[in-house]
Amino acid sequence: MDFRLTDMTDAEIEQELSVVEPLANSVRELIDAVIRTEVDDDRLNAAREQIEAVVESLREQQKPGSYGVPFTKTLHGMPYGNAAVGARNAIAPPLRIEHHPDGSATSEVTLGAAYEGPAGLVHGGVSAMLLDQLLGEAVSVGNGTPCFTGTLTVKYLRPTPLGPLSLNAVTTGNEGRKFFARAELCDAEGPTVVAEGIMISPANHPRHEEIKRLRAELSE
Amino acid sequence: MDFRLTDMTDAEIEQELSVVEPLANSVRELIDAVIRTEVDDDRLNAAREQIEAVVESLREQQKPGSYGVPFTKTLHGMPYGNAAVGARNAIAPPLRIEHHPDGSATSEVTLGAAYEGPAGLVHGGVSAMLLDQLLGEAVSVGNGTPCFTGTLTVKYLRPTPLGPLSLNAVTTGNEGRKFFARAELCDAEGPTVVAEGIMISPANHPRHEEIKRLRAELSE
Repeated sequence: MDFRLTDMTDAEIEQELSVVEPLANSVRELIDAVIRTEVDDDRLNAAREQIEAVVESLREQQKPGSYGVPFTKTLHGMPYGNAAVGARNAIAPPLRIEHHPDGSATSEVTLGAAYEGPAGLVHGGVSAMLLDQLLGEAVSVGNGTPCFTGTLTVKYLRPTPLGPLSLNAVTTGNEGRKFFARAELCDAEGPTVVAEGIMISPANHPRHEEIKRLRAELSE
Repeated sequence: MDFRLTDMTDAEIEQELSVVEPLANSVRELIDAVIRTEVDDDRLNAAREQIEAVVESLREQQKPGSYGVPFTKTLHGMPYGNAAVGARNAIAPPLRIEHHPDGSATSEVTLGAAYEGPAGLVHGGVSAMLLDQLLGEAVSVGNGTPCFTGTLTVKYLRPTPLGPLSLNAVTTGNEGRKFFARAELCDAEGPTVVAEGIMISPANHPRHEEIKRLRAELSE
């Protein structure tokens, strides 16, 4: 895994996001529209040709491979390509996660047609994905460096309707580099899915040591 | 949950897919291009405006809500909006699942930049989503009606690189309406993530009774 510091300033990053976030949002709308549209084949084919032209224009200059997770000079991660939270990734709702002083993490999200599994319901795998992200962030922020999921256990209490939902996660304990956490996905009536995670902090990973060292230097 | 029979013929469905699948594929390319592009802001803004125009054109006639899972007259499900396998859903890779005579299910898939979690690696939640889908299909096809995930346990053995991957799932046993199944996600070196699922067949659900009855009628 790479640990890459970007030389962009915070103002440059903010400028980039101000352009890229509305672009990714337009693609989110497009994903939804392609699922639900009932226009005729001529119009569908015309849409495809227009999209192919946009793709060609965007690909004239592009990063090889994937976006990765570069860090700002002030050591904030930029997971803009992330499948759950990435500002540039139209697959991500995106989940916007709030961290609280008690170490818990919460998020409000509205899931539309693109997140469907059974008719009218959130795909069980999507629920697992969002809960995994929240567990990881609750533990990672508490621990100060990224943690990886070791084991994820997801219990489906009842169907989760598409629409407005909320999530919460909290670290429940640790044994050395193993952290335990619990998260819930809720609709207006309460929890629909609960998850428990055993998250691993790879303490000896050079990337994390470097982040810790750089953070310490910055705070001096 | 609705159980909806479409009055489309198989030929009409095939015609629809021949137009809609390439359209969804163009959106998959677009998602990737938006993550990786490095063109300037003017071009990004122009891309957004073009996409917004396509969305407007597609939305002139559209289904309310989500796509749902209509059934053909020959009782094949059409989960075209599904987040993991949906032909119309650009969030889905889509997973194309093969069912084998021994009851196992397999799939080959290539995951690009849109499925990233840690730099260069598949998001752990994406792995969980794909494994959940495969477990559900292995059990559902074996049981003859849709099953729902009750509990999903996912163990991450090592990081999963973005790129070509394979999945397999098999039902390992059952107790009444509870089915047990096991699935693996593998790269070229072997399994990277394993999952166990307890899947529930809601035997008394009117939808399933109706499907079984219609299937019996069809086979007479």
